[in-house]
Amino acid sequence: MYRIGQGIDFHQLAEGRELWLGGVLIPHTKGAVGHSDADVLLHAICDAMLGALALGDIGKHFPDTDMSFKGIDSKILLKRSYDLIRGKGYKLVNVDSTLLLQAPKIKPFVPQMQEAIAGILELTIDDVSIKATTTETLSFIGREEGVVATANVLLVKM
Amino acid sequence: MYRIGQGIDFHQLAEGRELWLGGVLIPHTKGAVGHSDADVLLHAICDAMLGALALGDIGKHFPDTDMSFKGIDSKILLKRSYDLIRGKGYKLVNVDSTLLLQAPKIKPFVPQMQEAIAGILELTIDDVSIKATTTETLSFIGREEGVVATANVLLVKM
Amino acid sequence: MYRIGQGIDFHQLAEGRELWLGGVLIPHTKGAVGHSDADVLLHAICDAMLGALALGDIGKHFPDTDMSFKGIDSKILLKRSYDLIRGKGYKLVNVDSTLLLQAPKIKPFVPQMQEAIAGILELTIDDVSIKATTTETLSFIGREEGVVATANVLLVKM
Repeated sequence: MYRIGQGIDFHQLAEGRELWLGGVLIPHTKGAVGHSDADVLLHAICDAMLGALALGDIGKHFPDTDMSFKGIDSKILLKRSYDLIRGKGYKLVNVDSTLLLQAPKIKPFVPQMQEAIAGILELTIDDVSIKATTTETLSFIGREEGVVATANVLLVKM
Repeated sequence: MYRIGQGIDFHQLAEGRELWLGGVLIPHTKGAVGHSDADVLLHAICDAMLGALALGDIGKHFPDTDMSFKGIDSKILLKRSYDLIRGKGYKLVNVDSTLLLQAPKIKPFVPQMQEAIAGILELTIDDVSIKATTTETLSFIGREEGVVATANVLLVKM
Repeated sequence: MYRIGQGIDFHQLAEGRELWLGGVLIPHTKGAVGHSDADVLLHAICDAMLGALALGDIGKHFPDTDMSFKGIDSKILLKRSYDLIRGKGYKLVNVDSTLLLQAPKIKPFVPQMQEAIAGILELTIDDVSIKATTTETLSFIGREEGVVATANVLLVKM
């Protein structure tokens, strides 16, 4: 039996922060603001996995009021979210995701992101899709005030 | 055979309106503007169900020019949309959704929303996921001028 | 075995451009700005198909720095993207999509869009859903500065 999940996450961009996307540190003049490392792509994938089984959302499992999550590597949150769905007897079929950001170009970093995510989710890189698009300078994304990620996952009962 | 559906809906927020989300009246200083009760989450789920079978969209089935839908409880629209997919021989596997709004916190109301929706769609609450996120004050959502909901559904032929 | 894909695309609107949506030329005072014919809906569907099999994104396969794609009919890009997933041994189960735009009303053109897309993707029109919504005048979409399309696809191994 299959299940579908979706996730979307938003973070502000600001100077003086690191830009973590898909588990990879991206060289850039701005970084994402957040309680954890603010990895918008990993957060969207966490939410999609949790959502597929109605296990709540990332804010429920890893609240930003909990100091133990301050500055945390979101790969740990991804692993914990995955453990939750494994604990329910499900595995992932595939992940498809999109990063919405005006800059920088993330294409050179996609293979490294795919490897980081696939390793945690027990997938091959052919099962982890990371796409990217600008918003053609429109909206807060186009003004480089923020970054958004969306993800869909398909799960199957083991 | 499975089918995938997606829905997204937008409503403005204004003082002097009720805020209905997921079939539940949420106490808040603002409410959603619309022809019906403007329940953005139920509308996104209706659209996802209709879309999975290419039956059109909520604007086609329940046009806002039709006075019989004025102020209508969107749970009625959800039931009618569900009846349409049942009539085609499909049932729902699961629903995953996300509310994008800056305020108020909707987590305390999620179980009640899940029950309302699951009851109509002949699911258990474990098959109805409702997540929520702010946009970190970004965009019209962050400025509390509007609320957005996205939903994905997975259907299976009975 | 099934696979899920998602796509989202953004284009600016400007006077003096044609408005192509879903492979159909829509009469309107504004059109979409882009390197190709800027058909936001077909681009979202291309990305969803490519993403379902982690084949990269439309920017990778059809870069806007390549002059051979200048002004190209996006139906050609849709065909090429579909050929890529067929080449991997997959076919489409269904497509669900949503156009986010303030104007014009696209409902009269939906059957023609469904036929154009279904023909290319070897589907019937009952497998190609095109929904549309305004953003209730909110955001750059509501101000008619841009248009957005989202798409989900479900693939199955042949």
